[in-house]
Amino acid sequence: MKFLRLLLVFIPISLIGEFVHFSPTLMFILSALAIIPLAGLMGEATEEISFYSGPRIGGFLNATFGNATELIISFFALKAGLFEVVKASISGSVIGNILLVLGASMLAGGMKYKTQAFNKQALEVNSSMLLFAVIGLIIPAVFTHTVSPELLNKQYEGLSIIVAVIMFSIYLMSLFFSFYTHKDLYSVDHREESKPKWSLKTAVLVLVAATVFIGLESEFLVSAVEPMTKEAGLSEFFVGIILIPIIGNAAEHSTAVLMALKNEMDVAIEIAIGSSLQIILFVTPVLIFLSLLFKPMSIIFNEFELVALLLSVFIANRVSNDGESNWLEGFQLLAVYLIIAVSFFVL
Amino acid sequence: MKFLRLLLVFIPISLIGEFVHFSPTLMFILSALAIIPLAGLMGEATEEISFYSGPRIGGFLNATFGNATELIISFFALKAGLFEVVKASISGSVIGNILLVLGASMLAGGMKYKTQAFNKQALEVNSSMLLFAVIGLIIPAVFTHTVSPELLNKQYEGLSIIVAVIMFSIYLMSLFFSFYTHKDLYSVDHREESKPKWSLKTAVLVLVAATVFIGLESEFLVSAVEPMTKEAGLSEFFVGIILIPIIGNAAEHSTAVLMALKNEMDVAIEIAIGSSLQIILFVTPVLIFLSLLFKPMSIIFNEFELVALLLSVFIANRVSNDGESNWLEGFQLLAVYLIIAVSFFVL
Amino acid sequence: MKFLRLLLVFIPISLIGEFVHFSPTLMFILSALAIIPLAGLMGEATEEISFYSGPRIGGFLNATFGNATELIISFFALKAGLFEVVKASISGSVIGNILLVLGASMLAGGMKYKTQAFNKQALEVNSSMLLFAVIGLIIPAVFTHTVSPELLNKQYEGLSIIVAVIMFSIYLMSLFFSFYTHKDLYSVDHREESKPKWSLKTAVLVLVAATVFIGLESEFLVSAVEPMTKEAGLSEFFVGIILIPIIGNAAEHSTAVLMALKNEMDVAIEIAIGSSLQIILFVTPVLIFLSLLFKPMSIIFNEFELVALLLSVFIANRVSNDGESNWLEGFQLLAVYLIIAVSFFVL
Repeated sequence: MKFLRLLLVFIPISLIGEFVHFSPTLMFILSALAIIPLAGLMGEATEEISFYSGPRIGGFLNATFGNATELIISFFALKAGLFEVVKASISGSVIGNILLVLGASMLAGGMKYKTQAFNKQALEVNSSMLLFAVIGLIIPAVFTHTVSPELLNKQYEGLSIIVAVIMFSIYLMSLFFSFYTHKDLYSVDHREESKPKWSLKTAVLVLVAATVFIGLESEFLVSAVEPMTKEAGLSEFFVGIILIPIIGNAAEHSTAVLMALKNEMDVAIEIAIGSSLQIILFVTPVLIFLSLLFKPMSIIFNEFELVALLLSVFIANRVSNDGESNWLEGFQLLAVYLIIAVSFFVL
Repeated sequence: MKFLRLLLVFIPISLIGEFVHFSPTLMFILSALAIIPLAGLMGEATEEISFYSGPRIGGFLNATFGNATELIISFFALKAGLFEVVKASISGSVIGNILLVLGASMLAGGMKYKTQAFNKQALEVNSSMLLFAVIGLIIPAVFTHTVSPELLNKQYEGLSIIVAVIMFSIYLMSLFFSFYTHKDLYSVDHREESKPKWSLKTAVLVLVAATVFIGLESEFLVSAVEPMTKEAGLSEFFVGIILIPIIGNAAEHSTAVLMALKNEMDVAIEIAIGSSLQIILFVTPVLIFLSLLFKPMSIIFNEFELVALLLSVFIANRVSNDGESNWLEGFQLLAVYLIIAVSFFVL
Repeated sequence: MKFLRLLLVFIPISLIGEFVHFSPTLMFILSALAIIPLAGLMGEATEEISFYSGPRIGGFLNATFGNATELIISFFALKAGLFEVVKASISGSVIGNILLVLGASMLAGGMKYKTQAFNKQALEVNSSMLLFAVIGLIIPAVFTHTVSPELLNKQYEGLSIIVAVIMFSIYLMSLFFSFYTHKDLYSVDHREESKPKWSLKTAVLVLVAATVFIGLESEFLVSAVEPMTKEAGLSEFFVGIILIPIIGNAAEHSTAVLMALKNEMDVAIEIAIGSSLQIILFVTPVLIFLSLLFKPMSIIFNEFELVALLLSVFIANRVSNDGESNWLEGFQLLAVYLIIAVSFFVL
């Protein structure tokens, strides 16, 4: 993880690029490379703070800041009116977490250990929740796809807000569940056994600085999307569903793979499934609410996104139901991800 | 359950309403309130009779009369040519049983007990059957939605009857399975341990009277549907998929919640899944057969109904596979149900 | 199995039929009847060879020749440009293996034994793989069905080849998995305990002769398809999805049922799921590659095929997750198959 910090050098480079007007594709790449270590630092700072705040608030901070990078990038995309990019990146994050993160973890871990067992009991609550959450997202979409669209346009907005409120209330209830009524279900995090490396002051400073710079770089990234898609011949949808999720989740991805290599497959799967869950129950409704500041965004995803989401969730449920993983399972998840990516790239 | 009997007062009120021509919305509400305790009485009477008839015939009676209320309401809707209402109420019964009944049971039970374990072995036969039955229902629908509809209209009728015959034969085989070849799989019903409260004569009289009055009130209810939808601005589909199933299943709903509160989650889940199964394998084919008396109804459900059915069945399978439930799981099932209901109401 | 050899008499009869120009329907039936025992002989010869080659090469031969009959029939259909028949027979083979073979095995076995337990551990790797493989097939199809088709036609070809390469690489990896890294997972085949009946020379001769005659009869069969569909009023799709898979898999079908009757349900399920897996990961990509010799075939299946495939795979996963089977489960699988077959026949 340390070596990722070297990428921080892309912060000044991208700043220079902004002033001397580099090409959009170059600016997209530079700001993407700058965001990756910043997201990592934000995660580290949050964890350090949780040493001082105690496990309850720490757990809450981890849960809330875990997808802060995606949230910030999406906020700027929302502001720029790139609704398709925002929704594609939501779907892409879930798909990427399940297929890419889990696939890479299982492949890497499986090349070191023949089979890796994990406690499926603890995963079942989350993978069930993920299934229910995605179904909650599909229902209004199928409903609006079935009904003639002209009749509906005006009701989209109200329906989206109601669904977002319901999703967000499930999120709040799940925090209540995991921090109060059923906190014993969630075993103590392995990483918390160690001592804090930073002082509280340092940790807070790093968190603030990382957030500010992620905001800045996200603005560069998002404003490069439209001209870049024209320059490089990519679709905005491809950028949203494949590239942005990889940038936003790179730090988490490497943590999951490292955990798999330490034979802590429980933690790797927990990262992938927990993160997917937060994107649907926390990031998505928050973005719907924030969109009301600019122009209301509907919660209705397109057919392809819904199918890919549902099928990914079936895979997550199947995988977590198995209780053990091997390299072939990882290879197959990556193969399915590759098929998705290629399908879009070919377009 | 006893307090529901107070609602019997709505029988005379609805009779008066019919003669003095109350508004359709009021008549719908009055007859709905009258049906709820009648359905409860019918269930009680069937159970009482089974004390005298022995477990085998008793089980058969329970299985057959369990959804008699839905069957009677649907019969009158069929006679009135309200095919969309009939099919919506079939789908709505299954969705409501899985999401509303199971959700309410798990939430209520989970607020009293931290986790409620249940024997998943016994549930697996039924939840598998439910999956297979819904798939059997989806296949001809997808087939007809794929093929150009003009070519098909004339073959709908024959196909529907054949599918209904196959479904009904699965129902008969499942009775043979549970009462002959594998009767030991089904543990003795907890409620049968007690003694009969009524004489056989009373029980038969109550059963006959309840059936007659349900028939009468169903006729009031159904003839109020069309004018009410215009008066209250509701869609017939909303009435069919949300309101009618709640009315028809209210008695069963309260039994399931009571069982969950007594920590008998097995029985609560069995009610929800068993009832769903009977609706697809028994009520649906019987309605197709009965429709031949008036105008043949096709067995082809619309896209939304099929998606909602299949997703509900996935949830039922996931839930029964877990082996235990908690309040958060219940909350989520209710949230998914709420999203479905809101989607229709907004329209 | 021996009695199937009597059907070899249809080889000379079909040859005579070809010269004296029998009607297409008769030629279809004659060549179908000739293929059934030839496919059985091919399977027996492959098994005999594996006695001499050792388990590793033997396993590979079994895996590769297991679906040789389907591959040969499809090759001639491909050459004749009957793409819809080829793709329908791919889907039909998977659906038939899961619903018809598994259903018949469970029904037959379940009539002899009350419940038949099987080791679900060993099945889970394959049934997970089947789920992932079918999802890999669905993704590009949903993608192309969502996007406007005019834009895509030119990119179909490239996308199909890439997806076929990915599928085939999963196949190769799975061979590596089962013959090298995790060979202990796959218990020794029960049938290998016996001694070879044939000399190696005989076995090789039988294999070559069977392959040659299957090729010949497949050519008769395929060239009868188009005129027969007109003569008998069947759709080509019905021939592809129902009839051809039954012909190509008849030998395997009877082996699975025999195994179920010997209470070796593990082997019966392994045949059905393993064969489905090979069709998707080996037969399908090979046919895509072979089609480049004539006219490129796309890997995009129609909506009905995809839904039927996915639902069949859910059933396979559910069944293998249970750990035991009974006659009612078999009856239901056959009922779902019957609904599919009737849906097409009615057309």
